[in-house]
Amino acid sequence: MVGGGQLARMTHEAGIPLGIKFKLLSDTPQDSAAQVVGDVVIGDYRDLDTLREFARGCDVITFDHEHVPTEHLRALEADGIPVRPGPDALVHAQDKGVMRAKLDEIGVPCPRHRIVTDVEDVAAFAAEGLAEGAGGDGFPIILKTVRGGYDGKGVWFVRSIEDAAEPFRAGVPVLAEEKVDFVRELAANVVRSPHGQAVAYPVVESQQVNGVCDTVIAPAPGIPDELALQAEELALRIAKELGVVGHLAVELFETPDGRILVNELAMRPHNSGHWTQDGAITSQFANHVRAVLDLPLGDPRPRAKWTVMVNVLGGDYPDMYYAYLHCMARDPQLKIHMYGKDVKPGRKVGHVNTYGEDLDDVLERARHAAGYLRGTITE
Amino acid sequence: MVGGGQLARMTHEAGIPLGIKFKLLSDTPQDSAAQVVGDVVIGDYRDLDTLREFARGCDVITFDHEHVPTEHLRALEADGIPVRPGPDALVHAQDKGVMRAKLDEIGVPCPRHRIVTDVEDVAAFAAEGLAEGAGGDGFPIILKTVRGGYDGKGVWFVRSIEDAAEPFRAGVPVLAEEKVDFVRELAANVVRSPHGQAVAYPVVESQQVNGVCDTVIAPAPGIPDELALQAEELALRIAKELGVVGHLAVELFETPDGRILVNELAMRPHNSGHWTQDGAITSQFANHVRAVLDLPLGDPRPRAKWTVMVNVLGGDYPDMYYAYLHCMARDPQLKIHMYGKDVKPGRKVGHVNTYGEDLDDVLERARHAAGYLRGTITE
Repeated sequence: MVGGGQLARMTHEAGIPLGIKFKLLSDTPQDSAAQVVGDVVIGDYRDLDTLREFARGCDVITFDHEHVPTEHLRALEADGIPVRPGPDALVHAQDKGVMRAKLDEIGVPCPRHRIVTDVEDVAAFAAEGLAEGAGGDGFPIILKTVRGGYDGKGVWFVRSIEDAAEPFRAGVPVLAEEKVDFVRELAANVVRSPHGQAVAYPVVESQQVNGVCDTVIAPAPGIPDELALQAEELALRIAKELGVVGHLAVELFETPDGRILVNELAMRPHNSGHWTQDGAITSQFANHVRAVLDLPLGDPRPRAKWTVMVNVLGGDYPDMYYAYLHCMARDPQLKIHMYGKDVKPGRKVGHVNTYGEDLDDVLERARHAAGYLRGTITE
Repeated sequence: MVGGGQLARMTHEAGIPLGIKFKLLSDTPQDSAAQVVGDVVIGDYRDLDTLREFARGCDVITFDHEHVPTEHLRALEADGIPVRPGPDALVHAQDKGVMRAKLDEIGVPCPRHRIVTDVEDVAAFAAEGLAEGAGGDGFPIILKTVRGGYDGKGVWFVRSIEDAAEPFRAGVPVLAEEKVDFVRELAANVVRSPHGQAVAYPVVESQQVNGVCDTVIAPAPGIPDELALQAEELALRIAKELGVVGHLAVELFETPDGRILVNELAMRPHNSGHWTQDGAITSQFANHVRAVLDLPLGDPRPRAKWTVMVNVLGGDYPDMYYAYLHCMARDPQLKIHMYGKDVKPGRKVGHVNTYGEDLDDVLERARHAAGYLRGTITE
């Protein structure tokens, strides 16, 4: 696995029971996964020689993130190393321009969008929205760099033409999108194997705070069966049409009139699927491992009526021990997943999962624990 | 953790979500746990200098097995390293003579037993059984070396005086025990923390084949509530009286007249608790980690009506991949736990867990999968 973040850490954890010989390429020995994996190579994934040397002897290569250059992936494939997901699929998670073009081509509903070339073009894009009912001058709109963004980085909420210059400064192509009037965000998580077998997890509600995922509720409360089925089928269709192998997360907007629009794609285990570790029969990490190795996939169905995941952001505690004492004593059913990262304010350093019959109770327990581990709740 | 077997492997797996910095002392880099742990020291636990050097910087030491010499554990404690379970507790799992004496002292029901000094003494022990209703010449009886046995090794089923010489050849004290007429074997698993908090898992039925654990059913089918409670209380009392910290497995005989007798003790995660990985809210491995670190313990209750564990013994397959294809496709809910060991006939190389509402179905699925992975079932 290339990349030493928490997704690699949790994939290793899920691979241990299958006897997988897990080898990691990590930037530093301190990275989240590098702390817990036996076979670690320290190196830069942007360097092709490093990547080639790492890949030698691997049965298959997969990823903790989407940042490995496409041409490097093609070189590995030319060396005869299976790369899953492959470069032709992964490019849709790397480049938002390519992703939007492909989704348009296969008829997947997306927010109105267009690659924009400069500030004047942004104004034109905004004005085009007026015809579709946007108010005032067509703002606000969203601008995104087509590559390199995550967790709200590389994304601008543009209220007026004055805000539109900043995104162009990086010299990367910029995608403009309408600001969708959504009632909530959903995520459809599916896993697909090279054989073409695929499984769909229940559609979840994903709540963001400051552009960062905060809470995930599985399944999405009150979602009509019809809409849930539509979202699952959409994600399965995208996985198939794009040739995804492994986990695919499709982030969705639910609109007031009951439609769904695709916001983002991720081709790896995803924050909106962390609940599956304790709430599903087979976790997203275990199924990603199975898919990548072309093994039959595990049952994705939930084990509890409700499962809630809340992220733990870095806060006041450099050492979690005393916070653990409180949280574990208060809730013996709580599931804590920490990433071994240095605590820096605002950084995702872990998450908690809770499950049960009563959603209010499950939500309260998860939020209390995450708040306490962060230090924003102290009693 | 001292010892690189599968128990250390699965303890590491359970410690990852808590951000535990797990350090392993392993005999070889090929040992089960050494394959998947980042921080591994290769060395001999019987060498005090090696053990001391390993322990430096550890917050606490625990064990994959019971073979570390008691005097070494005392030396570590004298160095200021917390050892959990401590030597005064662990000796009861190391020395069956000490264990029986202590259980007698605290009034725990055991099979009739006595340390025997030679073949004549064995005959005398057998004859003593006649008074209590044993047939014929008082045989069969059981002989055990007081130290060093496991999985049927160091245990002799003695049918007549002619069989009684062998156990004395090792020069280790020998314990004689009556051959208990039992209807089945049970196991009571509990976990106790330094604070004295303790939790009890449901009492399970443990089925042995050739002296090796084969199948565990949780909870024990048809066990009267009264007997289950009695077994749990007995295990909790033993944990307290012996000062156990961490996991304690109490292997029990259930007699035809509805009594329970203690067979063996183990002070570490135990084969009879492997079902908890997929069948309990908190696994025995997670609770062992929590106990050893003096954290509040997790909920031990079951998540399913029935959970079954069946061991996978080494068989015909050096590579499990094709067996995985069959087993995973046949049962998408199957949980496979392999240990990364070389497959040698009869060696425990993994286990499977299944759970569900219908015991016959759950048993059939686990047995089929374990048989297929071993190679004894091929269709």
